[in-house]
Amino acid sequence: MEKIQVNNALLKQFKVWFQEGNLADLHNQLGQMYPQDIAAVIDRLNTEEARKVMNALDKEAVVKVLVETEQEAREQFLSAYSSYEIANEFIEKMNSDDAAYILNHFSNNKKEEIIAKLHDIEYASSLLELISYENETAGSLMALELVKAYEDWSVKKCIEEIRIQAENVESILVVYVVDDLERLKGIITLKNLILADPNEQIQKLFNKEVISVSTSAPVDEVANLTKKYDLMVLPVVDPLGRLVGRITIDDVVDLIKDEADEDYQLMSGITEDVDPTDKVWILSRARLPWLIIGLFGGIASSRFLALYEGQIMIHPEMAFFIPMIAAMGGNVGVQSSAIVVQGIANDTLGTKNIGQKILKELRVALLNGIICSLLILFYNLAFQDSYELALTVSFALLTVIIFASIFGTFIPMVLNQMKIDPALATGPFITTSNDLLGIVIYFSIGRLLY
Amino acid sequence: MEKIQVNNALLKQFKVWFQEGNLADLHNQLGQMYPQDIAAVIDRLNTEEARKVMNALDKEAVVKVLVETEQEAREQFLSAYSSYEIANEFIEKMNSDDAAYILNHFSNNKKEEIIAKLHDIEYASSLLELISYENETAGSLMALELVKAYEDWSVKKCIEEIRIQAENVESILVVYVVDDLERLKGIITLKNLILADPNEQIQKLFNKEVISVSTSAPVDEVANLTKKYDLMVLPVVDPLGRLVGRITIDDVVDLIKDEADEDYQLMSGITEDVDPTDKVWILSRARLPWLIIGLFGGIASSRFLALYEGQIMIHPEMAFFIPMIAAMGGNVGVQSSAIVVQGIANDTLGTKNIGQKILKELRVALLNGIICSLLILFYNLAFQDSYELALTVSFALLTVIIFASIFGTFIPMVLNQMKIDPALATGPFITTSNDLLGIVIYFSIGRLLY
Repeated sequence: MEKIQVNNALLKQFKVWFQEGNLADLHNQLGQMYPQDIAAVIDRLNTEEARKVMNALDKEAVVKVLVETEQEAREQFLSAYSSYEIANEFIEKMNSDDAAYILNHFSNNKKEEIIAKLHDIEYASSLLELISYENETAGSLMALELVKAYEDWSVKKCIEEIRIQAENVESILVVYVVDDLERLKGIITLKNLILADPNEQIQKLFNKEVISVSTSAPVDEVANLTKKYDLMVLPVVDPLGRLVGRITIDDVVDLIKDEADEDYQLMSGITEDVDPTDKVWILSRARLPWLIIGLFGGIASSRFLALYEGQIMIHPEMAFFIPMIAAMGGNVGVQSSAIVVQGIANDTLGTKNIGQKILKELRVALLNGIICSLLILFYNLAFQDSYELALTVSFALLTVIIFASIFGTFIPMVLNQMKIDPALATGPFITTSNDLLGIVIYFSIGRLLY
Repeated sequence: MEKIQVNNALLKQFKVWFQEGNLADLHNQLGQMYPQDIAAVIDRLNTEEARKVMNALDKEAVVKVLVETEQEAREQFLSAYSSYEIANEFIEKMNSDDAAYILNHFSNNKKEEIIAKLHDIEYASSLLELISYENETAGSLMALELVKAYEDWSVKKCIEEIRIQAENVESILVVYVVDDLERLKGIITLKNLILADPNEQIQKLFNKEVISVSTSAPVDEVANLTKKYDLMVLPVVDPLGRLVGRITIDDVVDLIKDEADEDYQLMSGITEDVDPTDKVWILSRARLPWLIIGLFGGIASSRFLALYEGQIMIHPEMAFFIPMIAAMGGNVGVQSSAIVVQGIANDTLGTKNIGQKILKELRVALLNGIICSLLILFYNLAFQDSYELALTVSFALLTVIIFASIFGTFIPMVLNQMKIDPALATGPFITTSNDLLGIVIYFSIGRLLY
């Protein structure tokens, strides 16, 4: 097997094989590819072609590829199978976390129907439990497959048990030590087991310093703990402290990356998770909401400016600086909100003292505001005729920077306290509201000074 | 040990202990804390207080904490030690990747001086090699500590060797199998070793499907491979295919998070890596460059608008829609560039065919532009007196959306081809240039239609 660049040339090659009916070369090529790369190919083929690729794979590979494809391709592929087939040909062969992930994309009725069709009743009951955890919690992310040992076992007994338990567990990173009530007591690494005397008691060997999360912990906490304490795998316990599952770091990587991508897109005014290969209307739909908010902001600005029609007619030079005032308000607001949103996400905000944070933000804004308004004052005094205009622009700029900064800090914090994703307050939302704010301040000051 | 919330109450408690000279309680508290949490405390204390905490720790803990603190706190702490002490009391006790990371924050002379003072010549020579790799490459990120086995070993021999090699390696995830020229041939997991017959040959057991990177591979590739193939650890090979180190996923997590944070900050117009606990002038300095770019953009807009002073005087209503046109240009530009920047970062752009991407972006822009300009046309026909204004605004909006979208797509792609970080082109840069573009288009069209 080798990593393969999934590019247009490769896709063209696949299409040639389909046309020629050349299954031998197709099969040969697929045999050399990792499931992740096959999935990437499938995501770019149409339903019929994707099915040809899937049919050319052996059963084990189909399951691996299915877990890696995008939701749309997976749904189209599975739509040709009955609940019974989905259960026993696909779900049954997956790790519990992958199975739960895929089941959760079906409707409630459908996923229960699929689970009920499973031959393996024990696995079915585990899956029922897994899909019952609330979205975005540790419980919804964990896998049930793990290797555990009881405190009173010897190393030898433990290794024998690993032989038995290991069949269901793809990668064993550590063995969890539990008491006879199944409560998590600690961990022992495979390295320590290999290096230990076989007759030694587990009790004397295991590490009691184990970081775990409860099933109801939010995924953000999972991500932050994993990152902070450099964990490879995080055990999940129920409210009574009993070991119920584990989350491996590779799933946390996906989580961190997805959340970062989502925040980045929200900040840039894109509301759905899209990527450049999506269809035009999906890309369009993801962007329209913020553009329409921008339109409303623009209409509000125009209505406000209409009140000053007379002033603009007499002093058209006031209009010259509308773009600057609006833009600076937007820029400062985005800067402030980004810092707060990131601080909340990374849990680096420290205390929850909103007043203190706003005060600090105010000092930063004051410093930047003074520097920027002095710069523009010098420019205007040097190159503009109107002394009043120069004063109005600088004074308005300073005020706008300070207000934009306060709003930029305040709004995401308030949203966060209201349990709304603070990232919603960044990007176009802040830009639009600060545009309007800036113009109101600018013309109000202009009326006073002129 | 337990996870501890590092908050103001805890910091206050530490300060009370310092005042009282209460070393017993301090020591006791520290004994219960993870190095990561102690480091978080130290990052928030002044130099003198931080030193008191460090002095209350045992030598082993000091090294662990030192690796976790922020650069500033670490430099201040180490400044009190000679190169000899830094080498043999701290660097010598660290994993090679941590040691190289910390050494790389010293000047070239200083780091070579420290390495030269190490008692352990072999380790010194390894560190010299590690610090020689270029920044942002796999070589600069890897650790040298790993466990390897030769193809012709038996399982028993391999486990014996692990006992010997394991002393230097904190966490063993897999054993690397090499040939007698040290070339990487495959991996064998500890699970497989435990489960295998001790007399079996490694040759028959190991997995030949191993994904590796070369020392010169960029860190982005490391991150993408780890994420895509769900790797826990990635072996690093030299140009001859010889195994030289390994990168564990916890370091990749830090990498992914740092890069995402950096892109997010760049997008929001913040040029340095800052967090909300930094000092006011650092926060200010990180934001000023983009604000000043915004100022220049604003000045350019004002100069352009000055050319239309007469028109504004006659038709002041044209000024009403300046904020909308500028804002929409900025919003659309940011949306387009964000999608491209993210596509480049995640390697999901597919082909490198710029023309095709721009064509697609154009279709999205056309769709959104038509929707937005029709909406504003209806609004203006209903609520504004001027038919010419309504046409000008809608026609300008459509044109601005299309141009902003093309620039937003084009600029990051060109930067990327020029090997400049495309994320630089997002946020304020795009906003500012599209503000200006929008106004030029709006008034040019206005002159034609009025």
